[in-house]
Parts: sequence; C-alpha cells; structure tokens
Amino acid sequence: MPTLPFDLPDLSIFSSGAGGEEGAAFADALFSLFILFLAAKIGEEVFRRINQPGVIGELLGGFIVGPFALGLAHVTLTAEVFAELGVVILLFTVGLEVRLDDLLKVGPMALAVGLIGFVLPIIAGIAIGLAMGEEALSAALIGLALAATSIGITSRVLAEMGMLDRAFARVILGAAIVDDILALLAIGVLSGLAEGDLGVDTVLTLVAGLAFVGIGLALAPLGRRLPRKIFVWPKFADTPVVPVFILMFAGALLAQFVGLAAIIGAFVIGLFVAETPVREEVEHGFRSLLGIFAPFFFAVTGANIDMSALLQLDLLIIVLVLTLMGVLTKLIGGIVGSWRLGKWNSVVVGLGMSPRGEVGIVVAALGLSLALINQEVYAVLLAAVILTTLVAPVLLQWAIPKAPRDERHPEGADAGA
Amino acid sequence: MPTLPFDLPDLSIFSSGAGGEEGAAFADALFSLFILFLAAKIGEEVFRRINQPGVIGELLGGFIVGPFALGLAHVTLTAEVFAELGVVILLFTVGLEVRLDDLLKVGPMALAVGLIGFVLPIIAGIAIGLAMGEEALSAALIGLALAATSIGITSRVLAEMGMLDRAFARVILGAAIVDDILALLAIGVLSGLAEGDLGVDTVLTLVAGLAFVGIGLALAPLGRRLPRKIFVWPKFADTPVVPVFILMFAGALLAQFVGLAAIIGAFVIGLFVAETPVREEVEHGFRSLLGIFAPFFFAVTGANIDMSALLQLDLLIIVLVLTLMGVLTKLIGGIVGSWRLGKWNSVVVGLGMSPRGEVGIVVAALGLSLALINQEVYAVLLAAVILTTLVAPVLLQWAIPKAPRDERHPEGADAGA
Repeated sequence: MPTLPFDLPDLSIFSSGAGGEEGAAFADALFSLFILFLAAKIGEEVFRRINQPGVIGELLGGFIVGPFALGLAHVTLTAEVFAELGVVILLFTVGLEVRLDDLLKVGPMALAVGLIGFVLPIIAGIAIGLAMGEEALSAALIGLALAATSIGITSRVLAEMGMLDRAFARVILGAAIVDDILALLAIGVLSGLAEGDLGVDTVLTLVAGLAFVGIGLALAPLGRRLPRKIFVWPKFADTPVVPVFILMFAGALLAQFVGLAAIIGAFVIGLFVAETPVREEVEHGFRSLLGIFAPFFFAVTGANIDMSALLQLDLLIIVLVLTLMGVLTKLIGGIVGSWRLGKWNSVVVGLGMSPRGEVGIVVAALGLSLALINQEVYAVLLAAVILTTLVAPVLLQWAIPKAPRDERHPEGADAGA
Repeated sequence: MPTLPFDLPDLSIFSSGAGGEEGAAFADALFSLFILFLAAKIGEEVFRRINQPGVIGELLGGFIVGPFALGLAHVTLTAEVFAELGVVILLFTVGLEVRLDDLLKVGPMALAVGLIGFVLPIIAGIAIGLAMGEEALSAALIGLALAATSIGITSRVLAEMGMLDRAFARVILGAAIVDDILALLAIGVLSGLAEGDLGVDTVLTLVAGLAFVGIGLALAPLGRRLPRKIFVWPKFADTPVVPVFILMFAGALLAQFVGLAAIIGAFVIGLFVAETPVREEVEHGFRSLLGIFAPFFFAVTGANIDMSALLQLDLLIIVLVLTLMGVLTKLIGGIVGSWRLGKWNSVVVGLGMSPRGEVGIVVAALGLSLALINQEVYAVLLAAVILTTLVAPVLLQWAIPKAPRDERHPEGADAGA
C-alpha cells in the first residue's frame, strides 16, 4: 500500500465518526476523493487543450495520482461507490437523450452488432488462449473478457462530441444491452462449468435479466401518459430531480439484483424518464450531478490501471495481440452488423463497442478467483482490456467526423439536425 | 452488527472492484446509501405533511432504518463521507446566501452570543458533572460537550423557512464560527491537561484556526473584482459549478487541516463566491447537489442515534437536566448577546445555537477515548446532545413566526423584504 507523501492531520475531530482508526480512514477517504477529482479535471483540461478526448485525460489523471503511480490517492471503497454512481448517472443521462422509438427501430441492427461482436472476440480469445497453451475453459474465459463491452467510456465520448442523437449512438447503446445480457449468460455458464454445476440458476438469471430489460422497455412508453405533477407530488420535491434520482438508484440496484450491470438499469430508467414531460427539467437538474459524480468513474478506472504487464517484452506481445484482436473483432461486429448505416457509421459502431473497461476487468478477476487463469494471464488480460479502453476514444474521435449524417435507411436515420 | 432482513445478491459481478469480501462490502455500501436516502425523504414527507420541520423527519427516517432500530442500513464509512459532503455543501450554500458586509455588521453581536453561549454551558456542565460526583476535568468535558454548537440542523431549518436573509440568521452563523474557534481552543486545552502536556501545539492550532477565518473573511471582498470568465476559464467548465466545487472541497479540507470544522471552511468559501458575479449561477447549479447530498447528513446523524440511555429512569433524569440546561444556557447567550435585535429575534438566535449535533457527540467520544468519562456518562451525554438536536427545530419553527422583521438597529436590519 503506497503512503501519502506527508502526514495527514487528524481530520476526524469534527467529523461525525469517532476518532482514531476510523477517523483516519474517514480522512483518507475524503482526501482521496478530492485528489482523484482534481486529477481527473486537470487531466481533462490538458487533453482538451491538445484536442484529444477529455476522457483519456481523466483516466490518465486518475492513473497518475493512483496507487500504481504517485500514490497520492487511494482507491477506497468510498471512491468505488462514487465511481459506480458516476457511471450510473452517466448512463441515466444518456438514456434521457435517447427516444425509445428510435432505439427500437435500430433493434435488429443492435442485435446483430451485439451478437457478432460477442461471438467473434470469444472465438479469437479461445484461439489465442489455446495458442498460449491454456486449457479450453481458461481460453474461453480469455475470450469472454475480450467480449464484454463497457459502455461508459463511449457514452462519454459521444456526449462530449454532441453525438448522442446519431443513429450509430443508438445502435451502440442497444448492442451494449445485448452484450450485457449475453455476458450475464456466459458468465453464468462459465462459472457453472468451472465449479462443475451448471444448474437452473444460470437459466433463472438469464430469464430475470431478459425480463428486466423487456419489462423496462415495455413500461417506458407509459411515461408519456404521466403528468408532471406526479413527479413533484411529494412535498420534499420542488423539482422532479430528487424523485427521479430515487427512481434511477432503484433501477440500478434492481438491475444488479437480477445480475445485470447497474448501468443497464439506470439506462432503462433514463429511457423511461425521457418519455415523460419532465425530461428537460431532469436533464437540466442532473447536469451538475453528472459533472460532480462522473469524473470519479474515470479517475477510479484510471487509478486501477496496473501497467506492469506492459513492461515485460514477451508479455507485451501477447497484450498487443489481444488488444488488436479485441478492437478488430468488435470492429467487424460493428461493420457487418450495421453495414446499412454506411461504411464510416458502421466503423464508428464497431469502435464504440471496443472499450472493455471495468466489465473486462471483472471477468478477468472472476477467472482469477475461479482459478481458471493464473496471475500472469490475469495481468496480460488486464493490460489488453485497459489498452482497448484507452485506444477507443482516440479512434472514435478520428472516425466520427468521417461518418456522414445522411444514413441511407429511414430506420437508421438521425433524429436531429 | 445488525444484518439485512434478506440475503443480498452478489452485486459485485459488474462493479469495478473485485468480487468476494470487497464486493459484498461494496454492495452493502451502495444499498445502505439508497436505504438511508429513501428513509430520509419518506421521513421528511411525513413530517412536512403534518406541518413539522422536515429535518426532524429526515433524522427519524435515518434512525428507523439505522443500526439502533430496524438495521436495514449500515452507517458505512462511505455513508459518513456522503454525510460530510452533504453538510459541507449545505453550509457552502448557506454562505452563498449571506452578504459579507451584513455578516461583519453583526460581528460584535455574534461575538457576544458565541462567547456567552459557550461559557454558560461549560459552567452548567461543570456544576452538573460535579453534582454527579465526577472529577473536575471530567466535569469540564461534560461542559464542553454542552458548549459545542452544530450549525447544520439550524441552517437547514432556516433555509427551509426562507429565513437566511434575516439578521438573526447572520448572528447565528457568526456566533457558530466564534463557537467553533472556542471549541478548537477548549478541546486543545482539555486534551493537553488530560494527557498532562499543554504545549505550544494548542496555541499554534488556535492561531491557525483564527488565521484561516481571518484570511478567508479578508479575501472574500476580492471576489467582487473577479470576472465570470475566470470561473469558466477551464475547458472542462461550461458553467462555474465544477471549479467552484473544487474550491469548496479544498476550503473544507483546509479548514479541517488547521483543526476547524470542514463546514466552517465551506461556509467561508460560500461567502467568497457570494461576492462574485457567478453567485446566482452557482446557487442554481448547486441546488441538485444539495438535494442529493444533504439528506445523507441528516439520515446518518439520525442513524447514529442510540437512545438506550433514555430507557433507564435514573439516567433519564440526568439526560433531561442536561438537555434543559443545554437549551437554556444557549437561550440566555442568544437573548443577552443579541438583545438589541428585539426579544423574539434574540430568542430565535438562542434556539438556533441549541443543536449540539455531531460536534457534541465527537466531544463526548473524545472524552471517552481520553478516559475522562465512562460509558454511562458517555451514553447520557449522547442522549442529551441528541435531544437538543431534536428539540431545537421544533422550537425554532414555533419561535420564528413571532420574531418581527423590523429590528430596531440598523446594524441588525434585515437585508431583504
């Protein structure tokens, strides 16, 4: 555990907790939050001034102050919670920007992108794993870590560039849902196989996950019939912000409860609120929440980056192969699945599905805990996951301007100007 | 440790942390946050519908789901951090509402209220302590726990009733700063005496505390000369919200660093920002941050309430005596110190200084850790502190409507209509 470069004063005297050890942990948690936030914003500032995606700056800012570099900030449990709420709020606000009808229109396309972009990386991962001399199940886990998509990074890039109204954004979002359900299924199957018991639990989890998304999407149109006064009915609510925050939080927890990602729950709630008359008010009120919480997600993701595997040449080659295959397979998934959007638009879809982020990391960690992979393979997977996450925003920023707004098919047509 | 009424699913699969123990702690932290928030809002709703202060509802909501009642939510370190940020943001926004000149005008009055309201409870506490058979130093600690003021509760009541522009509000805020500096000094002296070494540290701490407040108040008028563009100079800032959030956070940490309460730092930064041209924008942008963070402060304060001392009759009498003396001494401090505001206005000042809240709890905890008091006295002090906190909002809501707006002296005159 790295230590702070100076002694922290006992900040606990006036904190609501008691003094001593708990007080020190409290002071550390608060101080680490501040450093992570500051580092993210300074990183963003530097990157935007050199015309690079701000999100990379936030990731690198977090990395620099994090435990694998300067060690100024600890990634405390509190920081993880702030990060989780950050990405939950991010995906909720993305959901707010999407019209359900538009999303459903690109449904088949999203299904194709999600499926192809899930199967190909698994095949590639298995091939690489077997070539590395791993067992079949271990190779499958490597494939699965390559197949998972983390939508947080892409969402941020799309929002930053004002592209959430584009058809490719909706395809990416829809495909991410498909991806998450497939990951849910695959993780269940793989865990079951590894532990030698593949039972009804896996099936139940899948059913619950599908039911959550299905019911959520089915209920969303009902939002149109809700009058504003329902949202400000509570006396504590002058604006709909607090009631909607509770709804979003509940949706995120419920999604986790059935085994999906919390962000899928928040996204579905966002879709629902987008249909209601309070959409603009909520969007407005959530702007500062997004500004305060979201940086923690990127800073913490960056602070968790362990680049040690990149420093060994023999491992580095495997890392680069995995990264390349990771991006390529998602790219093929995007191009094949959404070809009808036009060449560059489908390229953007593929690149948008590329960041593995925390989902890939968690699959790798799961493999480690199930003893499917060893520490070395874990480090390699981690590095590849991180590289896909760092590379994608740069590629997206390069590709998006090339993608014309006039997609050829009406079902893929842009909603906005 | 109370347990949840049902098994939590493993929510960690998609979290950014690893699975297992850490994953369970993560899930618990997130779930507890949700429950605390929901309970606070439901509590507020109930109390507002019966025309009682919403803040009492939030406190009781937190108590009901907390570890001393249903045990649905744990007061995790993460919840404590959310609570701290909640009260920091609350006092920052209170600072935004106050004009520095108006605050300085009531300076002498605030000084008198703060001093009298600090000395009298200490005398009363010592008398009660000695009557209980405690040693001199232990009795002094009881007095000190009665002397500390927690401004969070009163701020919230004043904000809820739209009274932050009143002269009594400024006197309370100024007196709270005086109180905090006196507490800083007294805690230093008492700790030094208890540990048998009363050195330069105490003096240094006091100087640092005074310097922080002094420099802060001296710098605040410079805010008038700052153009808006300084606040939105960073590329990451479309609005001043994020830069000001960083400033507020830094001020809070700095105040803690010199030994003051974090909220004093946030309040001083609020005074500063209030003088700048971005005041209204910041006020607007912080509204949803306040709505999301502040309830955690009240819910966590409520969840930490241990009422066991109230269940023993012999202890209950001491608790009631302490509570009564606690409110009475602050009331006298308010009436004597701010008599020129008029009878009812000075009563409001005294009642506003009454809640001891987390500051009183921490002094009591300090006494326990220094072995100045035993568990029983600690429980009694805790109960008295809690009662002052619960009683004050009710008394305030009763007294404020009686206080006329036309105070007699210009230096105490109300700013707004």
